[in-house]
Amino acid sequence: MSRIDGRAADELRPVRIERGWSKHAEGSVLVSFGDTRVLCTASVTEGVPRWRRGSGEGWVTSEYAMLPRATNTRGDRESVRGRIGGRTHEISRLIGRSLRAVIDFRALGENTFVLDCDVLQADGGTRTAAITGAYVALADAVAWAQREKLVKARSQPLTGAVSAVSVGIVGGVPMLDLAYEEDVRAETDMNVVCTGDGRFVEVQGTAEGKPFDRAELDALLDLAVAGCSRLDAAQRAALAEG
Amino acid sequence: MSRIDGRAADELRPVRIERGWSKHAEGSVLVSFGDTRVLCTASVTEGVPRWRRGSGEGWVTSEYAMLPRATNTRGDRESVRGRIGGRTHEISRLIGRSLRAVIDFRALGENTFVLDCDVLQADGGTRTAAITGAYVALADAVAWAQREKLVKARSQPLTGAVSAVSVGIVGGVPMLDLAYEEDVRAETDMNVVCTGDGRFVEVQGTAEGKPFDRAELDALLDLAVAGCSRLDAAQRAALAEG
Amino acid sequence: MSRIDGRAADELRPVRIERGWSKHAEGSVLVSFGDTRVLCTASVTEGVPRWRRGSGEGWVTSEYAMLPRATNTRGDRESVRGRIGGRTHEISRLIGRSLRAVIDFRALGENTFVLDCDVLQADGGTRTAAITGAYVALADAVAWAQREKLVKARSQPLTGAVSAVSVGIVGGVPMLDLAYEEDVRAETDMNVVCTGDGRFVEVQGTAEGKPFDRAELDALLDLAVAGCSRLDAAQRAALAEG
Amino acid sequence: MSRIDGRAADELRPVRIERGWSKHAEGSVLVSFGDTRVLCTASVTEGVPRWRRGSGEGWVTSEYAMLPRATNTRGDRESVRGRIGGRTHEISRLIGRSLRAVIDFRALGENTFVLDCDVLQADGGTRTAAITGAYVALADAVAWAQREKLVKARSQPLTGAVSAVSVGIVGGVPMLDLAYEEDVRAETDMNVVCTGDGRFVEVQGTAEGKPFDRAELDALLDLAVAGCSRLDAAQRAALAEG
Amino acid sequence: MSRIDGRAADELRPVRIERGWSKHAEGSVLVSFGDTRVLCTASVTEGVPRWRRGSGEGWVTSEYAMLPRATNTRGDRESVRGRIGGRTHEISRLIGRSLRAVIDFRALGENTFVLDCDVLQADGGTRTAAITGAYVALADAVAWAQREKLVKARSQPLTGAVSAVSVGIVGGVPMLDLAYEEDVRAETDMNVVCTGDGRFVEVQGTAEGKPFDRAELDALLDLAVAGCSRLDAAQRAALAEG
Amino acid sequence: MSRIDGRAADELRPVRIERGWSKHAEGSVLVSFGDTRVLCTASVTEGVPRWRRGSGEGWVTSEYAMLPRATNTRGDRESVRGRIGGRTHEISRLIGRSLRAVIDFRALGENTFVLDCDVLQADGGTRTAAITGAYVALADAVAWAQREKLVKARSQPLTGAVSAVSVGIVGGVPMLDLAYEEDVRAETDMNVVCTGDGRFVEVQGTAEGKPFDRAELDALLDLAVAGCSRLDAAQRAALAEG
Repeated sequence: MSRIDGRAADELRPVRIERGWSKHAEGSVLVSFGDTRVLCTASVTEGVPRWRRGSGEGWVTSEYAMLPRATNTRGDRESVRGRIGGRTHEISRLIGRSLRAVIDFRALGENTFVLDCDVLQADGGTRTAAITGAYVALADAVAWAQREKLVKARSQPLTGAVSAVSVGIVGGVPMLDLAYEEDVRAETDMNVVCTGDGRFVEVQGTAEGKPFDRAELDALLDLAVAGCSRLDAAQRAALAEG
Repeated sequence: MSRIDGRAADELRPVRIERGWSKHAEGSVLVSFGDTRVLCTASVTEGVPRWRRGSGEGWVTSEYAMLPRATNTRGDRESVRGRIGGRTHEISRLIGRSLRAVIDFRALGENTFVLDCDVLQADGGTRTAAITGAYVALADAVAWAQREKLVKARSQPLTGAVSAVSVGIVGGVPMLDLAYEEDVRAETDMNVVCTGDGRFVEVQGTAEGKPFDRAELDALLDLAVAGCSRLDAAQRAALAEG
Repeated sequence: MSRIDGRAADELRPVRIERGWSKHAEGSVLVSFGDTRVLCTASVTEGVPRWRRGSGEGWVTSEYAMLPRATNTRGDRESVRGRIGGRTHEISRLIGRSLRAVIDFRALGENTFVLDCDVLQADGGTRTAAITGAYVALADAVAWAQREKLVKARSQPLTGAVSAVSVGIVGGVPMLDLAYEEDVRAETDMNVVCTGDGRFVEVQGTAEGKPFDRAELDALLDLAVAGCSRLDAAQRAALAEG
Repeated sequence: MSRIDGRAADELRPVRIERGWSKHAEGSVLVSFGDTRVLCTASVTEGVPRWRRGSGEGWVTSEYAMLPRATNTRGDRESVRGRIGGRTHEISRLIGRSLRAVIDFRALGENTFVLDCDVLQADGGTRTAAITGAYVALADAVAWAQREKLVKARSQPLTGAVSAVSVGIVGGVPMLDLAYEEDVRAETDMNVVCTGDGRFVEVQGTAEGKPFDRAELDALLDLAVAGCSRLDAAQRAALAEG
Repeated sequence: MSRIDGRAADELRPVRIERGWSKHAEGSVLVSFGDTRVLCTASVTEGVPRWRRGSGEGWVTSEYAMLPRATNTRGDRESVRGRIGGRTHEISRLIGRSLRAVIDFRALGENTFVLDCDVLQADGGTRTAAITGAYVALADAVAWAQREKLVKARSQPLTGAVSAVSVGIVGGVPMLDLAYEEDVRAETDMNVVCTGDGRFVEVQGTAEGKPFDRAELDALLDLAVAGCSRLDAAQRAALAEG
Repeated sequence: MSRIDGRAADELRPVRIERGWSKHAEGSVLVSFGDTRVLCTASVTEGVPRWRRGSGEGWVTSEYAMLPRATNTRGDRESVRGRIGGRTHEISRLIGRSLRAVIDFRALGENTFVLDCDVLQADGGTRTAAITGAYVALADAVAWAQREKLVKARSQPLTGAVSAVSVGIVGGVPMLDLAYEEDVRAETDMNVVCTGDGRFVEVQGTAEGKPFDRAELDALLDLAVAGCSRLDAAQRAALAEG
């Protein structure tokens, strides 16, 4: 069975990681997974939220949002509605948790890194592209903070890399990195966040249609681990350029 | 290694499912997983949300909330803050999705079932207790709707049962149904929602401390499936009583 | 004329005051006036709101809310609507004022007591049940604070007891402690808050149908004072148990 | 004991009722009780709120607010804070209920009358001045609606008059129509709403300091009834002018 | 071509500036431009917003609002909707900027002046009337602050006067100080804020119908400067009275 | 006097207009004025807002926003704060008005065009870049709507072109198209919106430091008209490409 765009079931869409997209942010990446494009900026500020002051430890957090016309039909702005929707909240929290999994807070010192992930164009996999891009923006911001002496030069605040990919069962076939049209038709949909050495940070699988069994779950996990491994290579390549 | 309350690693806390707790609701359950107590009420109304009208299909949704002093220190009311927090949104959505996984919407007809899950006392596992209790309240509400002829008497709106349990790795040991004190210390935390026949509806695993590997994931899934099987039995027993 | 549930016009519904309902709160009561059930928890924190700091005096406040399906038809959650309704505000303020009427703030020291009154099931008189139960939860929390040395052991922060009851004219007959069905049909509706020695803290009478005259007002006040005297006895009995 | 402004204990402040203050509103009154000044406007619209449509009956409602510098120290605008406070809600509801007590909704037909009561300057008794002024604005608006044939010419939508006054115990002495400085020092504070024929629409008494007994309550009610009788005369005089 | 009210094209409506309208505010003015009536109060508080602390400089800000029935049809209260509309925001900002243009912040010392401009009745030109009245209220409040020794007696916090007027092209004719009916029909609408010596603080011109050319712009500016000069005289006269 | 980036006083920054940036929107432009980059998307929907239904006329509106890290220091998201700030509102309204000035609503038919202008990177002149880019996106969307037969093929919904530029007095010198660093130091700041034939749609001048006189105003208007003429040429060139 061939996919919408002719890919193999275990193939990623073309991945592009453009560093230094913004002149203001301490780290910035425009990441693309096919037609999904997310602008990830890292902002560094001295100090930490009130509940963490005096701990000697830093903080990393994230906010995710979509431009109103990132999608096929225009959505209302959350700023206009006056409320952030459940989906937005959920994804912001996921990105923050994923990045914190590879951070040594003590090495950061009392500094805060905010990763803004704004979806400029959506075609499925916006949260996984956001995590993958945000990691690179974070790495650039940490390097900036070390050059600026906010963070100790020889410390290792990043304990590893992190990337993410979606997998799903579409028409009975486990597939990697679903485009929007595939995602809509998926019976099961899973987002997997892995470290560079192939361990799991998050596994979120949902039966959209019928419940899935252990064999299906295993097949999806295999696909995802392989996909993350290729994303890890893309991140390394991007970071090696600069 | 013994647990806080002396349980074995693969043991559930005492589970209690009290049906008919409310005189007003079409279905109502006070569910307890140890000291976690959640009041689940099912409200039935004719008609469906605007986007579903004319489809001939029903709808099931859920709202989760905590009383301010359900926890050890009092939390601000979300109604007073004027916003629902990300965690609340996320859990409400999870409960709704879990229940919809075992519903035949066409058999429901154009009726809406709202499951309110209010945590009266929290001690870990509030979302899994909520799902487990809400399923029973939903089953009672469906039966009510059939008696009242809102839903056809011979239809089968419930295509299966659904229950949920938390698992986690605490001090290196995979454990079932974490109490709050265990949850706080867990390196990995996972919520698993299963159908009565042991398939998966949701798998949400998070590395709180260090990333987890495939073997750990497998051990947690085994524990969870066994736990859900016992919860399924408790649900059947409760529903058999009435 | 007999009442819905066969009571005499001057008879209370069965009153139950269960102390220690919550494992977390410093004081907690599940109070029932017939089918009306309100969970009252008292939370103690050191310190007082900003405007009272340095005064040497404590503070007591309250928040009242209803679960969405406490009533016969489900109400929207105020947290979801993003606003607290006028009725909720009004009752929260009434409960707070009523409790503060029997508090010596200097004896409390700079500590804050928050009384959360959450209606689990409503059948008329929810605010009067809440006041009656909250007083008992407050008394337990004051005793806890004295044992914990937050409040001086020999101080007398409570200068008296407080309870409340509704009265109304239904079908021309003055009646005590209206159930929901009676409340709906009442021409005049009054809530009266009394101290244990029979003086008034609040008197709130409203003509729902036609205006009432002085003789009717006097009859309602007589009923209310007698009702509060019996509630005061129930509070004493409950507090004597522990 | 003489009062701040030399009045006798049972004396009202100077009352002024200026009709026709606004060129736009269907009825408008600038009412003064001493230095308390409230602008009351009545707005008439055809149709009723959704829940009342098809009933053949009209509706009367009210909104109360204070300008930020109506008081001695500037208060934040509720529009800026994004929420209406509990006190504002409570008073708006009280004014609406008070006016509805003298309305025959059927005679109004399906028309809505909104009474806006905006406090331009506050010196105690703003809610009672608002009710007293709003009644006159409502009477003017009803007459307008009859001239415009929205309401039948010979119908009697107003079944009586309504006015309100505050009373309180200050320094042990029952007093009528408290100015702000007296209100602050009052041990007991009561707002009483009466019909033109001296019956009660609302009685709201609150012990600010120590609880009050039946004799005190009776003395306050006597004062209030006498005060409302004089306000009723002032309303009649104002309405006779036009 | 004669105007609605018979004025000449370059004629202001009758202007009235009543000082001392409020007993509480440090400066207060009821200003009228024809039937447009705005109550302007100035509130003085020691201290400045957080971002300005320690600067030795004061602050002046403004909030504009309309009573719901200031206009021909009743508008919803912004406090009830829970949001301030764009127009309100825009005008509040304009008034604040206009007043700050004639303030020497250093001479004010670290004190804050809030100008509340509440439209009691609207008939076009509410923002220009507000600026014109607010300047006088501010002058009174500055004098008060000097008498109270909050501001140094010999300092000159006001570096000039400021007033504002609307101009527009109606039916092809440039006109001064548009009433509401004219404003609605204007092809171009401009608000101009001038200092007492005839220089510009703000020029805001908008083509409502068709774009305007340079000659039209020049004609409007001429009218506006002449109008502001007469408003400046009216301000001086009002301030000379007290 | 030379400018920060070496431009002449009457020189624009490099202007780039990239059409077709988004695969979803009916019209989309990434516009740059130097380092200021704004993504403008046009969304077309059948139907108009409720207040315009049945008029046979269309509607054009706009929403402006900034990504949190578009600026040098990160700003809070308006969606997270739950309110749109005054500046955002003001600019959204300005963009909408500017575009509507060149629209024949009858030729549009009952269709709505929403222009979203999201600032990806800010360096002064974001609102003028937004208007200039949004016009091109709107032109593309109108052409799309004509191809799709939503709008009549031979109608002329666009009655002209519209572009905008900022001008200001910096260090006494009138300058065109201020970059952020210049804008901050400007004594006077003006935004001018012109039609393609050089007439004015909006003129908004503000004295940031000292008031400006007529000669300065004239110099600024001359600069702005010349600048808009060059922007008009850039828009034509861009639209000619496609």
